[in-house]
Amino acid sequence: MPSFVYTIDVEANPPSLQDNTGDLDRLKKAIFAKSRIMPAIPLERMAEVAQNFRKAQFKGTAFVNDMPNGPLLVDFQEEPCSVLPAMALDLGTTHLEASLVNLLDGKILTRANRENSQIEYGADILSRIHFAVKDDGLSRLHNSIVATINDLAEDLALQAGVARQKIRALSVSGNTTMVHLFLNLNPYYLCREPYIPLVNSPDPCQAGAVGLLIHPAAPVWIMPSIGSYFGGDLISGILASRLDEQQETCMLIDVGTNAEVVLGNSEWLIACAGAAGPALEGGVARMGMRAGPGAIEHVTIDPRTLELKYRTIDGGKPRGICGSGIIDLVAAFYLSRIIDIRGKFKKETCPDRFIDTGDGLGFVVADADEADQGEPVVLAQVDLDAMMRSKAAMYSILTTLINQVGLEFADLHRIFVAGAFGRHIDPRQAITLGMLPDLDIGVFQPIGNSSLAGAELVLLDRHNRERCQELIAKITYLELNVNQEFMIRFSGSRFIPHTDTSLFPSVPVFD
Amino acid sequence: MPSFVYTIDVEANPPSLQDNTGDLDRLKKAIFAKSRIMPAIPLERMAEVAQNFRKAQFKGTAFVNDMPNGPLLVDFQEEPCSVLPAMALDLGTTHLEASLVNLLDGKILTRANRENSQIEYGADILSRIHFAVKDDGLSRLHNSIVATINDLAEDLALQAGVARQKIRALSVSGNTTMVHLFLNLNPYYLCREPYIPLVNSPDPCQAGAVGLLIHPAAPVWIMPSIGSYFGGDLISGILASRLDEQQETCMLIDVGTNAEVVLGNSEWLIACAGAAGPALEGGVARMGMRAGPGAIEHVTIDPRTLELKYRTIDGGKPRGICGSGIIDLVAAFYLSRIIDIRGKFKKETCPDRFIDTGDGLGFVVADADEADQGEPVVLAQVDLDAMMRSKAAMYSILTTLINQVGLEFADLHRIFVAGAFGRHIDPRQAITLGMLPDLDIGVFQPIGNSSLAGAELVLLDRHNRERCQELIAKITYLELNVNQEFMIRFSGSRFIPHTDTSLFPSVPVFD
Repeated sequence: MPSFVYTIDVEANPPSLQDNTGDLDRLKKAIFAKSRIMPAIPLERMAEVAQNFRKAQFKGTAFVNDMPNGPLLVDFQEEPCSVLPAMALDLGTTHLEASLVNLLDGKILTRANRENSQIEYGADILSRIHFAVKDDGLSRLHNSIVATINDLAEDLALQAGVARQKIRALSVSGNTTMVHLFLNLNPYYLCREPYIPLVNSPDPCQAGAVGLLIHPAAPVWIMPSIGSYFGGDLISGILASRLDEQQETCMLIDVGTNAEVVLGNSEWLIACAGAAGPALEGGVARMGMRAGPGAIEHVTIDPRTLELKYRTIDGGKPRGICGSGIIDLVAAFYLSRIIDIRGKFKKETCPDRFIDTGDGLGFVVADADEADQGEPVVLAQVDLDAMMRSKAAMYSILTTLINQVGLEFADLHRIFVAGAFGRHIDPRQAITLGMLPDLDIGVFQPIGNSSLAGAELVLLDRHNRERCQELIAKITYLELNVNQEFMIRFSGSRFIPHTDTSLFPSVPVFD
Repeated sequence: MPSFVYTIDVEANPPSLQDNTGDLDRLKKAIFAKSRIMPAIPLERMAEVAQNFRKAQFKGTAFVNDMPNGPLLVDFQEEPCSVLPAMALDLGTTHLEASLVNLLDGKILTRANRENSQIEYGADILSRIHFAVKDDGLSRLHNSIVATINDLAEDLALQAGVARQKIRALSVSGNTTMVHLFLNLNPYYLCREPYIPLVNSPDPCQAGAVGLLIHPAAPVWIMPSIGSYFGGDLISGILASRLDEQQETCMLIDVGTNAEVVLGNSEWLIACAGAAGPALEGGVARMGMRAGPGAIEHVTIDPRTLELKYRTIDGGKPRGICGSGIIDLVAAFYLSRIIDIRGKFKKETCPDRFIDTGDGLGFVVADADEADQGEPVVLAQVDLDAMMRSKAAMYSILTTLINQVGLEFADLHRIFVAGAFGRHIDPRQAITLGMLPDLDIGVFQPIGNSSLAGAELVLLDRHNRERCQELIAKITYLELNVNQEFMIRFSGSRFIPHTDTSLFPSVPVFD
């Protein structure tokens, strides 16, 4: 099945008095004769396509967008096409990751990433939605993200040695709000009960219409969302994990700003989302940070000596702790009894590691001497509390969801864990905390940035674009905002590992 | 089959926590439930449609464009739709005629017409093509015609009491060059051997993309052409005359700047075009004019007394002679022997009717006293010569075409005569001149402005839009520019009625 844009090599008979077909009609006929495809040509492309077709003496390469309502002929060039670059984009709230794919062979040409420049208007989704309502707020947010994407496209193009305007397609995988801001659509109702997007499944548009500086007729595919809190990034995750093609029941966990979870197999899919992420993503803890240079990603504490060892992602001096580091750390706190089962510091266990942060107690993970820029890395009680809420929310989401369909965790064949969270955490430590269910470690499978991987997949094959539409028709969405069961489970989960310790037989119980 | 734009009354369930579908997805679903149609929504229309849908509390009227590659949802309003105006346009080289059609019931709301403002850049097609090549010539011609169409749309809207931007579709029927200029496409190759249009059959576009000030998402249908000299106006003529649905073989003659002729039935169609028009359209004779106020449309001369009587279209003082008046006049000249069979004046027959025009002899049809603004209406020998060439060309075109398929004129069930030419001429006089074949008068059927009528038909029914595509695939085009037979026939036709008088048994032969 065709990629989002494809090429057709054509050679038409030159015009003559005996064959007075118009140039574009001639081109279409030649394409039809070659491929049984009869594309339409948008008005804005007619003049240039006709000019190129004549200049090439009616022989060359046609570029066709594979749109849901039929093929669209958008360009023509004399030379054979050796590389057909398309951009896949993970449009995150804080961070954008992109790859450049050669649609001719499916290979990744290069990758790049950028901070989300909208952060200057609001660190989180909610503050940006509020900003969007003011005066020209929406257009400023829109212009900001388009500018960043244009910069990213330029990065990719430079690295791959192609011109930016030769990028001939774009796929975008992001949460529902980011997609609204990208398309310059009002996000007002997204954060107000009953939390309704302006659109979940926008029809593809052309890059020029959004202000993108890649090829103006490059088709833009937006991964559809299921609701305000279940975005296209998770549809990407389903595509990438092939959850929708599994014979046995599996689960997909994606932790970003929210924890988004899908459960199911090739027969059925059920999903829910909830606020469980910030502490894990590094957005809440004062010393929290994204998994990047200087981030402490792994921590151990010897339960006897209380000696602490850590490892940063790049092996350099520590600047902060990323999500996996926090999980390791809190699990180690628990196992070495530096915290109690409610997640409260027990200062008496090692008084010299604690300082007063000015906002309560803080545990010094790395002191000023060893840390980057002489700034000690500290985990405060308030950060720990946030972490406890996050882990409780996560486990409650998972149990609510699995109970909804009458299954138990033991019925799961596999749990796909997406994103940086999946790549860096040690499931063993997350189980110790009671964040993930107490299953065999082999059940957990990290799948990396599946938001980006899904975006790549839709560029490459119409089958994957069609799967998106099937998915959104197939997924049952469980709204947690009004779910009583979730609230009850949340209370029971605010202990390590859980009030019901029998749920976590592998985790030692103290006191 | 649906009109080019149609409405669907929908009522969707309001959003709730249990039903968190996005607004536009909700609207699409409601439309699908009602009509089994699943439209796409273009990005540019998403924000407004969603806003209107919410304001209307999820109940109202959706506007859907019936595009060849699927339905397109472009607008939504709370109120029921009582009138759905669409504009049909006959885009002539010298003159534009338009009508406003109510797509809800197919009735014509009003009509209007305007001069083609491009005349300031060139009176005829050829001079405009030359102008288009200069600097910004093309965009000036394009802007000029778009401005005129916007004015016409404003005229129609005012007359019908609707807002111009509520005109929700446009169909354009014009010759190939006019269509190029309208779409801002380079007409350079149209007038250079082998006379190739940039496009014969452009895909529909949206009004906003062309600069039209009707509804920005109004779909624009362009009647396809067959070649440089066979435009969409004649495809309209075929639609309006239903030539393509006739059991018996018929002919369609359309005389504008060129004479365009189609021969055929429901099984086959053959067409050709040639320069035969100007003298008949009033574009060549110094006193020639379009059929309008002050135009002499009918003339008789008593063969015995040589008394001349004329009638103007509006009964007012004469200002010039339109095509039908010229044909009447020249036929009367012949029957009263004021000209010879070569079309040369015999001054001696009535010396007092002749004056010296400064460029040869001229016959005074109406003298200064009786004419409008004291300017006598004169037909000069040079005008007569042009007329003789035109009539010879016309008859040669008809005979070449009918011979091409091995038929004779007597085999024709009907001859449809389109345009002002068809409405005003007396076929009897055209036969006397040897311009039309010597058939029973009942065979000739005037069909009025079939260019406009065809444009109206495509607005009303998808079947007619599909017929356009079938027609251009079906018509065989006979190129006269390289036709030897045509040149030979042309020479034989430069006499009244013909060198072979046996072809015109009903016409008296003199000398």
